[in-house]
Amino acid sequence: MIKAVLFDLDDTLVDTTKLAELARKNAVENMVRHGLPVDFNTAYNELLELINEYGSNFGRHFDYLLRRLDLPQNPKWVAAGVIAYHNTKFAYLRSVKNSRRVLLELKREGYKVAVVTDGDPIKQWEKILRLELDEYFDEVFISDYLGVKKPHPKIFLKALKKLDVKPEEAVMVGDRLYSDIYGAKNVGMVTVWFRYGKYRDKEMEYVEYADFTIERLEDLLKIIRGLNNEEKVSSDTEVHAD
Amino acid sequence: MIKAVLFDLDDTLVDTTKLAELARKNAVENMVRHGLPVDFNTAYNELLELINEYGSNFGRHFDYLLRRLDLPQNPKWVAAGVIAYHNTKFAYLRSVKNSRRVLLELKREGYKVAVVTDGDPIKQWEKILRLELDEYFDEVFISDYLGVKKPHPKIFLKALKKLDVKPEEAVMVGDRLYSDIYGAKNVGMVTVWFRYGKYRDKEMEYVEYADFTIERLEDLLKIIRGLNNEEKVSSDTEVHAD
Repeated sequence: MIKAVLFDLDDTLVDTTKLAELARKNAVENMVRHGLPVDFNTAYNELLELINEYGSNFGRHFDYLLRRLDLPQNPKWVAAGVIAYHNTKFAYLRSVKNSRRVLLELKREGYKVAVVTDGDPIKQWEKILRLELDEYFDEVFISDYLGVKKPHPKIFLKALKKLDVKPEEAVMVGDRLYSDIYGAKNVGMVTVWFRYGKYRDKEMEYVEYADFTIERLEDLLKIIRGLNNEEKVSSDTEVHAD
Repeated sequence: MIKAVLFDLDDTLVDTTKLAELARKNAVENMVRHGLPVDFNTAYNELLELINEYGSNFGRHFDYLLRRLDLPQNPKWVAAGVIAYHNTKFAYLRSVKNSRRVLLELKREGYKVAVVTDGDPIKQWEKILRLELDEYFDEVFISDYLGVKKPHPKIFLKALKKLDVKPEEAVMVGDRLYSDIYGAKNVGMVTVWFRYGKYRDKEMEYVEYADFTIERLEDLLKIIRGLNNEEKVSSDTEVHAD
């Protein structure tokens, strides 16, 4: 019997990849508009390369972009990038299609609902509060607080304990086969891989750990209802057999 | 003959104090709204004390606010503060009343116009670009780039050199008697103290370095026209006397 549904945040409930791409494009465009002496494509590709090397949470992307382009330090260009990036992030932050409906249905049907995510705790809460998703969640677990990252079992075990459910009573839904699916399966949870965003073709070596794969978040409802009906049918049958 | 007018940025062209106060109030209000278990006044006063001790550019105000209130770490409350703070800063950033008209008049009358400011170069440029003030300025000088702060003469001397004017041909306008007025007077510039914002009654021991004091930015135009007419009259007289 499924009693709790745990969600990853980025690219599962929050449309992170789409937003980041738009924000970066707008940033480079605004830098060029304010005098950055290279064409859009050159600068944008260099930025993607930089993010690939330094990670998306590196705080000095635009600054380092100038270095990589052999340009002098110029706070005006950096500011132009920062402004467009932030404006986009605030104006275009969106939840994943149908995620709000799925969360509402799950709450209506009595499931415990939680978030299990990596990332900077304040930034993760910013996304949740800006989208006003907080009311849907019984708990929000951020791995940073335990000093681990998914797929480390500690974060999943803590969530299960706090929600007071057994692993087999909980579903983990996430976009990453490694951190979400492999991680949750390792502690005995039911796993639903949401094939979405930039990881849709990545980490395929862990695909065997996914009990289910969905491409639309709303398909999660059918899976959970199916699991609980199946169990109900089989326990009805058992009763009948007595 | 005045040829150039140099402006400080914060509380001279950009309405910084008003904005910061509003942003901080909204931040604390949103923290309380999201469950911070203290009343608004207690939290707000503690925040002001904290900012007074750590400075307004300290990056972890809301985080430290929880510590000072003997509350546990809570990224949700911090995020609520950060969101409201940033939303306010973006939505309510304003130029000082009549500053745009003053800048336009000065440009129309042929003066060189520049900014001489302390502070983080990217943040200062962010304000300039968000307010679309950049077209008015021949140059923007940010002291950080020289490793000094106002009133160090280096920043003023660099500005004068780049603008190609003598000290006595340049007016410095700023809200701080120490950094702007005392600093500019020290290198021989004409000084106009804009008595505005949180420094309107501060640093009075340097008031003797102000050649003029104004409480409305538009009064600057009269002063500059007056200085140039006076000189024109006196040089006409000289010519006449020959």
